[in-house]
Amino acid sequence: MDKHQKWMHQALALAEKGRGNTSPNPMVGAVLVKDSKVVGEGFHQKFGGPHAEVGAIAQAGESAKGAMLYVNLEPCSHEGKTPPCALKIINAGISEVFIGMIDPNPQVNSRGIRLLQDAGITVHVGLLEDEARQLNRGFIHTFEKKRPWITLKMAQTADGYIADVSGKSQWISSSVAREFVMNQRTQHDAIMVGMGTVFKDDPGLLPVNRDGFIPYRVVLDDILRIPSRLRLVSDEFRNRTVIVTTTDEKKQKIKQLIGSGVQIMHVPGDSFGWIDLPKAMGQLAEFGITSIYSEGGSQVAGSLIQQGLVDEIQLFVAPKALGEGISTFSGFMKSLDSAIQLEWEDVQMLGPDVLIRGRLA
Amino acid sequence: MDKHQKWMHQALALAEKGRGNTSPNPMVGAVLVKDSKVVGEGFHQKFGGPHAEVGAIAQAGESAKGAMLYVNLEPCSHEGKTPPCALKIINAGISEVFIGMIDPNPQVNSRGIRLLQDAGITVHVGLLEDEARQLNRGFIHTFEKKRPWITLKMAQTADGYIADVSGKSQWISSSVAREFVMNQRTQHDAIMVGMGTVFKDDPGLLPVNRDGFIPYRVVLDDILRIPSRLRLVSDEFRNRTVIVTTTDEKKQKIKQLIGSGVQIMHVPGDSFGWIDLPKAMGQLAEFGITSIYSEGGSQVAGSLIQQGLVDEIQLFVAPKALGEGISTFSGFMKSLDSAIQLEWEDVQMLGPDVLIRGRLA
Repeated sequence: MDKHQKWMHQALALAEKGRGNTSPNPMVGAVLVKDSKVVGEGFHQKFGGPHAEVGAIAQAGESAKGAMLYVNLEPCSHEGKTPPCALKIINAGISEVFIGMIDPNPQVNSRGIRLLQDAGITVHVGLLEDEARQLNRGFIHTFEKKRPWITLKMAQTADGYIADVSGKSQWISSSVAREFVMNQRTQHDAIMVGMGTVFKDDPGLLPVNRDGFIPYRVVLDDILRIPSRLRLVSDEFRNRTVIVTTTDEKKQKIKQLIGSGVQIMHVPGDSFGWIDLPKAMGQLAEFGITSIYSEGGSQVAGSLIQQGLVDEIQLFVAPKALGEGISTFSGFMKSLDSAIQLEWEDVQMLGPDVLIRGRLA
Repeated sequence: MDKHQKWMHQALALAEKGRGNTSPNPMVGAVLVKDSKVVGEGFHQKFGGPHAEVGAIAQAGESAKGAMLYVNLEPCSHEGKTPPCALKIINAGISEVFIGMIDPNPQVNSRGIRLLQDAGITVHVGLLEDEARQLNRGFIHTFEKKRPWITLKMAQTADGYIADVSGKSQWISSSVAREFVMNQRTQHDAIMVGMGTVFKDDPGLLPVNRDGFIPYRVVLDDILRIPSRLRLVSDEFRNRTVIVTTTDEKKQKIKQLIGSGVQIMHVPGDSFGWIDLPKAMGQLAEFGITSIYSEGGSQVAGSLIQQGLVDEIQLFVAPKALGEGISTFSGFMKSLDSAIQLEWEDVQMLGPDVLIRGRLA
C-alpha cells in the first residue's frame, strides 16, 4: 500500500463514522496532508451538517496552504445546504487533490473536479474507487435507480428450507452467521421484514451495539395488522420503525402508532391489493433510506426477487437437512427454462455454514 | 516438495492407472530408486494380477539391491492370490522402504512392515498418507464398514429444487459442473440411480472417455420395472449394469436381462417392501464395488441420507430460482431440533455454480 492509498484509507475510515446519520447524503471523509504529516481531518457527521472538507480545512488552518487533500467523494460544486466545497478548497490554497470517486449527483458530476482544475489544482480521480463505491453504494444506487440498495438475506438448510414444517427457524444458521448478520445491520440504513416474520418471531432487528447507529426497521404491513404490544412498535427505538401500509382506514390505530413515535408510510396497493413494492421502495428512498437489509421470510424474499428488487443476495446454507419445511421463496413458480437467473460472486465458509454472495443476473 | 514426496507422487500416479480394474483390491503403485534414479516401476493392474512391487522389482533386476522403494500401501505379508510382497522385497535386497499407509486388511495390518523391519530394512510409514487414503478410500471403507464408500451428488437451484414442477432437471447446473460430475464417475467403482431417474432421463451414466474404465451402473429397481429398451440395459456396456431388485417373480424378464449380459442382484425388502438399502450396499461390497457415486433423485438421495449411507456430499447450488419444484430429498420430514446434521468441509465456485462438499456429521 503506497502512501496515497494509506491516506485515502484514513479518509474512508473517517467517512464511515458518519454511517447512519448522513443519508440520503453520502458518507465523506477528508484528510489533509503536508510534508507527509496529517494536518487536518474531517467527516460528514450528519445530514445537512458541514461537509468533510470544511472540517479538515478548519483543523489545518494556515497549514492547508500547499497541502494535499484526500477525499473519498468528489467535492461539491453547488450551493446546497452548505456552500460549495470546491471553492473552499481553492481558497485554502490546497495544491493537490486525490478523489475516490466522482459524485453521481447530477448537480455535481465532475463539476467540482473542473472547478478545482480550472484553479490550477492537480486532481487525481479514482484512488481506491472500489472501496469508495462500496461505502456509498446506497447513496449511489438511490441516485441512479431512485430506490434503495436492497440486500436480500436468506438462511436455509442444505435442502432449501428456511424453517421446519412447524415454522420454527431459530436457528437454521450458526451463531457465527448470526453475528455476521448483526454486523450487516449496521451497514444498511434499514432492516426490512414482513408481517409473517413479525408475528412469528416478534423480532427487535437491532444491532449488537445499541448505543451506536440504529438502522430503521421497515415493516411491510399491508392492512396494518401489527399488534401494538410487539417490540418493533413498543421498544425504546420505536421512532426508528417505519410501517409501510396500503390502508388509511384504521384511523385509530394509525393515530395511536404515530402518537407513540412510530412512522407510518402510506403506499398504493398493487393489482392484488398488496403493497406495490417498487412504489414503496421509491418512497423509502425519498424518506432518506438508501440501503435496506431484507431479513424477511418466503413472502418478502419471493416478492423482492420476482420483482427484480434485489441488488445483493446473501444466502446462508446450513449443514442440515429437514426433508420438508418452509421454502425459501413463495409467490412464484417458474419452469427451468424461465427460472429467475442469479449470479454467484463469492462463496466462503462462515463457521459451520456456507455463505454464498451473489445478485440477480 | 522434497525428493521423497516426488517419488511417492510418482507411485500414486502409477497406482491410479489401475483404477476400476483392481476392486475390491486396492490400487497400488511402486517406484524403485537408486542413486537418485528410478530403476523400476510397477502398479497393480487388475484384480488377482501381480502386485505393484513385483513389477518394479522385476524391472529393476540387479539394480534393486540397495535401492529405495516407494509404495502407497503397505506391502502384503500373506499368501493371497500371489506370494507375499514383503518377502520379495527382502529377497531383492532393497534397503529402505517408504510406505504411504498401513494396509487395513486384517490379514496384513502392519505385519508387512514388521517382516521388513525384522529383515533389517529401514521403513518409513505415512509419506503422503492423506493422498494414499484418498486414492483407496473405497477399499479402506469397504474393509471397515463392509459397504462401499458412497458419494451423494445433488444439483439444486438456490432455493433447493433439483427439478422444476414438470420434473425437468436438464440442466440445473452448468456444463462446468457436469464435466466435474463426468470426471467423478471415473473416480468411483459404480454410479447409482433409482427408477425415477431412469424413467425420466434414460441416462447412460458413462464417463467421457468410453475407451477407458467404465464404472458399474447400479439401478435400484425394487419390482424390476426397467423397460428393456432403455440405455442401461441395452447399450454396449450393459454387462456393466447391475439391477438391484427385491423381486424374483418376474422370471421371464430376469432371464432375458441376464441373457443380454445385465447383472441382477436380489436383495431383501425392508419393512415397507422397498429395497433394504444397508443390505443392498453390503451385497454390492461383496460383489466388488468399493465406491458408489449416487446420481439419483429425491427418493434415492432422501433414503441414503436418512439411513446414514452417505460418506461424502457434493452439493451443487446453481444461480437460479424456481419458486416451486421437486425437492432435493423425499421420504422424511424432520423438525429443526431433529434435523439431519451435516458438516461442510469445503466450498468453491465451479463455473457459475457453487460446489459445497461435506458429509454426515
